[in-house]
Amino acid sequence: MARIPADEAEDIFATAAELADAAREATLLYFRKTDLAAENKESTRFDPVTVADRLSEERMRAILARRRPHDGILGEEFGPKAGTSGLTWVLDPIDGTRGYISGTPTWGVLISVRDAAGPVYGIIDQPYIRERFEGGLGRARVVGPSGEAALRARTHRPLSQAILYSTFPEVGTQAEGAAFRRVAAQAKLTRYGTDCYGYALVAAGMVDLVIEAGLQAYDVQAPIAVIEAAGGIMTDWQGNPCHEGGQVLAAANRAIHAEALALLNG
Amino acid sequence: MARIPADEAEDIFATAAELADAAREATLLYFRKTDLAAENKESTRFDPVTVADRLSEERMRAILARRRPHDGILGEEFGPKAGTSGLTWVLDPIDGTRGYISGTPTWGVLISVRDAAGPVYGIIDQPYIRERFEGGLGRARVVGPSGEAALRARTHRPLSQAILYSTFPEVGTQAEGAAFRRVAAQAKLTRYGTDCYGYALVAAGMVDLVIEAGLQAYDVQAPIAVIEAAGGIMTDWQGNPCHEGGQVLAAANRAIHAEALALLNG
Repeated sequence: MARIPADEAEDIFATAAELADAAREATLLYFRKTDLAAENKESTRFDPVTVADRLSEERMRAILARRRPHDGILGEEFGPKAGTSGLTWVLDPIDGTRGYISGTPTWGVLISVRDAAGPVYGIIDQPYIRERFEGGLGRARVVGPSGEAALRARTHRPLSQAILYSTFPEVGTQAEGAAFRRVAAQAKLTRYGTDCYGYALVAAGMVDLVIEAGLQAYDVQAPIAVIEAAGGIMTDWQGNPCHEGGQVLAAANRAIHAEALALLNG
Repeated sequence: MARIPADEAEDIFATAAELADAAREATLLYFRKTDLAAENKESTRFDPVTVADRLSEERMRAILARRRPHDGILGEEFGPKAGTSGLTWVLDPIDGTRGYISGTPTWGVLISVRDAAGPVYGIIDQPYIRERFEGGLGRARVVGPSGEAALRARTHRPLSQAILYSTFPEVGTQAEGAAFRRVAAQAKLTRYGTDCYGYALVAAGMVDLVIEAGLQAYDVQAPIAVIEAAGGIMTDWQGNPCHEGGQVLAAANRAIHAEALALLNG
């Protein structure tokens, strides 16, 4: 990626923090309000879009219009806005809307900045816990209810000792599901239900692998930045960049990544 | 249950709060420490017991020995202690040890008090979030990062509009799993991975049903107290009391409970 000067990085950090603070406030306005109406975006699949989702993205876009008018925006709710700076903000105002409407604390706000080569900085924010994972441009840290800590992905242990997470047991298509289960069958522990929080746990050194399919660009960019800043690796199921979404394999280190990749393609 | 006088209830509240504070501190000492060793309690199933699990229960038992020496204790880690008061404290120092070793925020500390008829008061505490759900003896509330709120289970909506949670997609035996899937197939949304937090979400009015099997007495007593104080209902799969564990059906209200019960036995 193109080198980003220190003063530019500082402005990106400050802008991203303002976005995350605004999204935290907007999403918490409606979180666990039991009369919250959710509408279906697609008729074939349960994927609620809430008032909070839209409010959160609107507020972030207003901040970017003021602070970074020359950058592009790719948001989940309102579509792309072209920029001239070469940098694009990728926003998912609520990743895990099904978790959100259920009251769980594992949905999140995803904010990242990318250039032509991919994400350079990202935030995974959990508003209810008041916990923020960030990575890129020299940062790799979490700030939350237990204070601040460095993010450092796990060192290698064999797959038979590894922890695998995914949001649903029904991963992708039938063929994708079968590939996922080849890895799950070898892992020590497989768990579900984390949405973006699973990626944060890879960066935090707690989980070895997250494997998912059918993701969007705005689902993956912030996790890539945070995980790679923590020393992990995140690719598609062929080992290629996954910046545009689709099949995703997030791993704590190259050795466990290679083990999982072989089984996904075996 | 026998009537518990107000001053006795106040002492139970204060004792339970002291237990939960001690367990919160003990469990957080080791949470997300990446060198945490987990040992297997059973060779056939992954069920780690951590240093934190034992320390947490030891500290709670020390408090009970001082404050409530005549009450009995049933704890997950150190077994039963008989009492003479007719009241027994039921303790699960870490419910969801697999979530705990993965770094998720949905494990919890379960503390409850029961008499011969069943639980009269319970706490579901999530130490990392600093969130405490409590119910019984006139209380039904959550205190957490967004302040204090009353607990009130959801009003009825049909199963086709309901949210179902369970910890694993593989629920119990083959027959139990098939019964679970009959309900899941009719629900609007089925999610996994919550451990005790799913029960807290029923009490908080966010989730309609939690269905699990193979539970222990110490897994269910606090959830029963909290959910029933919030207006919900929790039984086994025949509609009988589930104080001793086994198959559990937690429901936000009697109507959705009846719908789920019919499908579990259908």
